[in-house]
Amino acid sequence: MHAGVIQFGTLENDRIRVYTGDMFSNPLPSDKTLRLHAVKLLTPTQPSKIIAMWNNFGALGRKLNLAKPAEPLYLIKAPNSYLNPGETIRKPSCEGKVAFEGELGIVIGKPCKGVSEAEAMNHVFGYTCGNDVTVVDILHRDPSFAQWVRAKGFDTFCPFGPAVATGLDPLSLIVTTRLNGELRQDYPISDMHFSVAQLVSLISNDMTLDPGDIILCGTSVGVGSMKPGSIVEVEIAGIGKLGNRFE
Amino acid sequence: MHAGVIQFGTLENDRIRVYTGDMFSNPLPSDKTLRLHAVKLLTPTQPSKIIAMWNNFGALGRKLNLAKPAEPLYLIKAPNSYLNPGETIRKPSCEGKVAFEGELGIVIGKPCKGVSEAEAMNHVFGYTCGNDVTVVDILHRDPSFAQWVRAKGFDTFCPFGPAVATGLDPLSLIVTTRLNGELRQDYPISDMHFSVAQLVSLISNDMTLDPGDIILCGTSVGVGSMKPGSIVEVEIAGIGKLGNRFE
Repeated sequence: MHAGVIQFGTLENDRIRVYTGDMFSNPLPSDKTLRLHAVKLLTPTQPSKIIAMWNNFGALGRKLNLAKPAEPLYLIKAPNSYLNPGETIRKPSCEGKVAFEGELGIVIGKPCKGVSEAEAMNHVFGYTCGNDVTVVDILHRDPSFAQWVRAKGFDTFCPFGPAVATGLDPLSLIVTTRLNGELRQDYPISDMHFSVAQLVSLISNDMTLDPGDIILCGTSVGVGSMKPGSIVEVEIAGIGKLGNRFE
Repeated sequence: MHAGVIQFGTLENDRIRVYTGDMFSNPLPSDKTLRLHAVKLLTPTQPSKIIAMWNNFGALGRKLNLAKPAEPLYLIKAPNSYLNPGETIRKPSCEGKVAFEGELGIVIGKPCKGVSEAEAMNHVFGYTCGNDVTVVDILHRDPSFAQWVRAKGFDTFCPFGPAVATGLDPLSLIVTTRLNGELRQDYPISDMHFSVAQLVSLISNDMTLDPGDIILCGTSVGVGSMKPGSIVEVEIAGIGKLGNRFE
């Protein structure tokens, strides 16, 4: 956002080249560039839905004594949880520890329904960073119904960005999360139970995925809780750093 | 939708009075009317989210041996599940019984966050009918993670409409569901564990609710599965009848 106008573009060193048209179907570069520091970064897409995986990493599964699931297990992040890079994650009025979960986000580029694993990567536009914020104490406090959607659906509980990176090999990516500068998560995407292609293929057999939709790949070891005043930074080399304060 | 143009209006006998402006903040009646049978009815709102309750009725809770929960228990319906009145609910490619669940939908009219029970009804625009379609066999087949979002999130699994009725007393409403003309559900909204005002207040403490958002109140006894070719009709006197075929 610059001078009140919302646009998209590509990063060229410390400037953003402004595009017109549709980001996914018809992106048209213009002659105009803006200084990165002169714009306010918003979420890099406007998803119709964000699907968040549970138990998708070997190391966290072993720590929690969870077997590899037979199929991807997931929930949906409520749209009121979407938060711009740099903005503040707000502690809800309810009691309970609020945890950060640094994650890789798969950004869908083309509508897909029932795509095969072989076709799936053609529908991936790129990758972003996400923080799947959670009130841990809510998850299992009702013995009859695990409250995944609610515990992860509070306002501001899904920062993502700061950009979508294209042309990456997801198997090479490492997710790091820092809390007040201290490294808390540092795990490889190659440890996922279900690969990017498997996630896109299997989920698209349940639900049509649309351009801008995001699959958060789940988190691994090192999750922790935030205190008011904390700064949490999710960084993936090749994508960028997503930083948010918690209050 | 009429002649390819999407508009909204109010029902006057067998005609629709066309409005301009915003349905929630600035609805302006025009002189134009259209015959009801000349238009294609779409979903009556375009929700940013649909929240669906679980275990919210006394009779179904008793049948399933479930106590009244301490707080509303809910999930989110994936937006790809939204379906227009009269359109076809599609059997997914996966195996498993597909159940209908006739429900009352609360339609939010004003943004609300953290509203009290006393203020809540001022934020309700009206009521609609919904069918919370579910692949029952998916729900509990993974022992570590109940798949509520997935089982209820397939494409076409959330028909709602045909209209939003205003000025109703929710305590007077009766939900009926017919499968191929046979009455299968016939239950009173007065049997809800959490009232309309309580649901809006409590959920708005978790998530900001926006105009057009819908809270599906949960279902009661009489849920059943559909065979290809079935017609399911959810009817609430004072609102209308939501009919969909299953194939």
